[in-house]
Amino acid sequence: MSFFEAHRARLEQAVEACRSRSYWSAYPEVASGKIYGETAKADGEAAFKALLGKPFDLGDGGTRQVGREVSPFGMALGITYPAADPDVLIESAIKAGESWARASIEDRVGVCLEIVERINRQSFLIANAAMHTTGQAFMMAFQAAGPHAQDRALEAIAYSYDEMIRVPRTANWSKPQGKGDPIVLDKSFRIVPRGVSLVIGCATFPTWNGYPAIFASLATGNSVIVKPHPGAILPLAITVKIGREVLKEAGFDPNVLTLAPDEADAPVAQELAAHPGVAIVDFTGSPAFGQWVRENSATGLVFTEEAGINAIVIDSTDDFRGMCSNIAFSLSLYSGQMCTAPQNIFVPAAGIETNDGHKSYDEVASAIGSAIDRLLGDPDRAANILGTIQNEATAKRVDAARKLGRIVRDSAPVPVAGFDQARTASPLLLAVDAKDDRAWGEERFGPIAFVIRTESTGESIALASQSARRKGAITASLYTTSDAVIDDAADAFARAGVALSVNLTGGIYVNQSAAFSDYHVSGANPAGNACLTDSAFVANRFRVAPMRRQKAA
Amino acid sequence: MSFFEAHRARLEQAVEACRSRSYWSAYPEVASGKIYGETAKADGEAAFKALLGKPFDLGDGGTRQVGREVSPFGMALGITYPAADPDVLIESAIKAGESWARASIEDRVGVCLEIVERINRQSFLIANAAMHTTGQAFMMAFQAAGPHAQDRALEAIAYSYDEMIRVPRTANWSKPQGKGDPIVLDKSFRIVPRGVSLVIGCATFPTWNGYPAIFASLATGNSVIVKPHPGAILPLAITVKIGREVLKEAGFDPNVLTLAPDEADAPVAQELAAHPGVAIVDFTGSPAFGQWVRENSATGLVFTEEAGINAIVIDSTDDFRGMCSNIAFSLSLYSGQMCTAPQNIFVPAAGIETNDGHKSYDEVASAIGSAIDRLLGDPDRAANILGTIQNEATAKRVDAARKLGRIVRDSAPVPVAGFDQARTASPLLLAVDAKDDRAWGEERFGPIAFVIRTESTGESIALASQSARRKGAITASLYTTSDAVIDDAADAFARAGVALSVNLTGGIYVNQSAAFSDYHVSGANPAGNACLTDSAFVANRFRVAPMRRQKAA
Repeated sequence: MSFFEAHRARLEQAVEACRSRSYWSAYPEVASGKIYGETAKADGEAAFKALLGKPFDLGDGGTRQVGREVSPFGMALGITYPAADPDVLIESAIKAGESWARASIEDRVGVCLEIVERINRQSFLIANAAMHTTGQAFMMAFQAAGPHAQDRALEAIAYSYDEMIRVPRTANWSKPQGKGDPIVLDKSFRIVPRGVSLVIGCATFPTWNGYPAIFASLATGNSVIVKPHPGAILPLAITVKIGREVLKEAGFDPNVLTLAPDEADAPVAQELAAHPGVAIVDFTGSPAFGQWVRENSATGLVFTEEAGINAIVIDSTDDFRGMCSNIAFSLSLYSGQMCTAPQNIFVPAAGIETNDGHKSYDEVASAIGSAIDRLLGDPDRAANILGTIQNEATAKRVDAARKLGRIVRDSAPVPVAGFDQARTASPLLLAVDAKDDRAWGEERFGPIAFVIRTESTGESIALASQSARRKGAITASLYTTSDAVIDDAADAFARAGVALSVNLTGGIYVNQSAAFSDYHVSGANPAGNACLTDSAFVANRFRVAPMRRQKAA
Repeated sequence: MSFFEAHRARLEQAVEACRSRSYWSAYPEVASGKIYGETAKADGEAAFKALLGKPFDLGDGGTRQVGREVSPFGMALGITYPAADPDVLIESAIKAGESWARASIEDRVGVCLEIVERINRQSFLIANAAMHTTGQAFMMAFQAAGPHAQDRALEAIAYSYDEMIRVPRTANWSKPQGKGDPIVLDKSFRIVPRGVSLVIGCATFPTWNGYPAIFASLATGNSVIVKPHPGAILPLAITVKIGREVLKEAGFDPNVLTLAPDEADAPVAQELAAHPGVAIVDFTGSPAFGQWVRENSATGLVFTEEAGINAIVIDSTDDFRGMCSNIAFSLSLYSGQMCTAPQNIFVPAAGIETNDGHKSYDEVASAIGSAIDRLLGDPDRAANILGTIQNEATAKRVDAARKLGRIVRDSAPVPVAGFDQARTASPLLLAVDAKDDRAWGEERFGPIAFVIRTESTGESIALASQSARRKGAITASLYTTSDAVIDDAADAFARAGVALSVNLTGGIYVNQSAAFSDYHVSGANPAGNACLTDSAFVANRFRVAPMRRQKAA
């Protein structure tokens, strides 16, 4: 059975899920031996350890060895990866792309589905790789870099497939000519890929943010060069290795998918992006480099996820404790290093009404601080939620942020069992006034949050949505018992292109974005120009070349 | 009945036609009194004449009067149009866009469909307006600027509608939690327009090339500023006027659709395109200005149709006379001023096999020349096919081109009954060698064509497809009796992003591109970065703003 037929049912479910946007998931997020095999956890860890301290074999044409990843948990990985010169890499991608471009939609989509399937089987290996590059705690690394990222890949494949099959392969065109014979043309339509697609990855969610672009570009027939963040190469190297194996098995040149590893002091992303041989650029990373990529890529076809400043607006609640706990978790998860994590919590100066009676501004702030303390009271649980700090610069940012406001809850290191050298920091919570926008008006990536005193909920919504328009935002969260406030916020945040969550108090958090349901990033504010995943993310990755032939009358 | 309900059946047919790409047309191309009303032709002409020599009333806030259109048939139109400063125009478009953005998909699409319907009723007025700006003969102006353009508008509306309704309005998201209660979220998804859309029109097909962008942007909720070519304002001014009337009737601020007229020596397109208030730019025109627009627009969302060099490859034929007649018509129609018109005719030096026996290179060239003479032998018919030369520069280009090769057939003026001052030129046909690419390798817009002597059909295909990759091309045409040659050409032109027509000998021409069936421009070579119309043309004109709300358990 072909790869396509083997995975067809799952593909069709995925297409349907993208349409309905109800809950659906292909890859189980539970790291259970019953699902992944009783030895999967141990096998994954062993496989990871076997990679440490050695050159990584990608079976490609790289000539130099690069790579200096250091786990935020403390140890250097000691893995090097073969690197080729950009010109060589692009040349080989173009060459490999010729037969890939000519393959049928089904053959290409089948290969992509098989790659994701095999990646899924390596979820525990990828979890270890992600843990020791992103610094996420193991369970989060498993879910975010494993099944959740695989769902995102499948979502992108489903969108690509659906978009390509919307173009008919043939058409019979018969134009009436009054009493005469009709003019008849046989038409056919061919999907033409763009060429070489460059995917520039990030350090915090290398697979989750990279897979949509990788698989959308592959499915639509482009060759893909993956340029991982120098601090998080391994998860994408494993991905590329698996992809190359499947491509080869299916009879394609494995250089359809290659890796362009680099080191922080000898970066290659700019040379690749500015190369005229690159037709598509996908980027996840900082707004500063995002701007460079948008302005300097040789191609006009650039998809970015940059960054923003996410807000929580607190107006009122009928579950004060649930609200504070929910916010505490959102601030703590992966130490605030998610592009969806909130930074700014807007609270009216007059306080709010709750099921526990009126709470003053100060009471709200300290209740959130206490909820964080409660959540992180147990050191093991704390370590499992917070993980570590991916980048030294983030740790320094936390230190520098203390002077930006009144400290409601201070940040502190958190011990991680077994990793004495882990770089950690729990959330820093600061109280500031609305006018202190030099503090809260900038993105402060990491476990840094502000409780901002405003005149009213109206001002809170206005400040949060204006900030989103100016600096970007991916998420917003609202707590209110008033439908009118929900309507106002829905209008303001929709116009600012921000995904709004309302009254989350249970086991779901504003940080979470589900494949097949939540549109991640709107593309409508500076947080990014594209969405994971919608039609616009895939439709321009290929073009249509028509042919028409006069039919003998 | 709402506008949407009134036109719903037609919309659904249009959506289906876009999918099947079989023949379909909503607006009859036959300029018949039985269809458009017995007095429609006379009424249209009278309405046109009533506009001449006066300020055009758009009912907008323009403060200056601009406009110096001169008919290529000889007379100055003497019409002026109200012009506003770019800042004022953009401000009013933003303001008007607020309620337009909030309108339902159905309300917006209904308004768009009604506008096209009313434009259709004014097809004879628009035909006169197009004739005396583009310089097309009346019948062509009627079809291309009238019903064909209206079909293109409907196609863009259908794509926009289909794309928007692919996003569900609500979803119930219920995530199982093992033995516990599921997590349930009520989700809703809102279509968020980009903002202000600028459509920069061209002089040769102002409505046909402008309508897709205008209606795709309107349907998806954006305000539209139409910046017509200074030489062809009237057809778009009539369009905007009708649009504003319908918007007003439907209760919207008519400034959702405004005109930004200018004069050649005081252009406003650059100021508008570079304005940060403009979110989408659509451009049809020269590659030089197209490049400026792509590189300097404030927004990254730019759709262009620029220009290319279209080729005919002649390998062999079983209908030599039909082939020559067909090519002659393609070269003559609107004096080669179509973006789809061929310029380069590649013929092997050894000649070709035909149903009339072997024909040498010279015989092929002179047979095409003779076919042009035959086609244009009757002066009335000649005038009806050729129309006039829109731009003085094109006439000069024809004169200058004579020295580029051996003249097979010379260009000459053609009398137009009733218009002594008409600027006309029949096709110039030159014989050159493949190595004379300084002659044929540049776009020579207008009635200028080359018969290029190549070593072989293989070289013909290679040269034509390489030229398309380098300089752009929208169409290619092939004559051959060999399926292998068809396959080779299909591969080469598809990879170059060129729409290929094979063995056209009857009443259909390579220049013609049908709405709902032919994808016009691939977006895959320098002839343009977008296609009329596909998903990619509409999908990025709006974004999705999600909202999710925790449901009480």
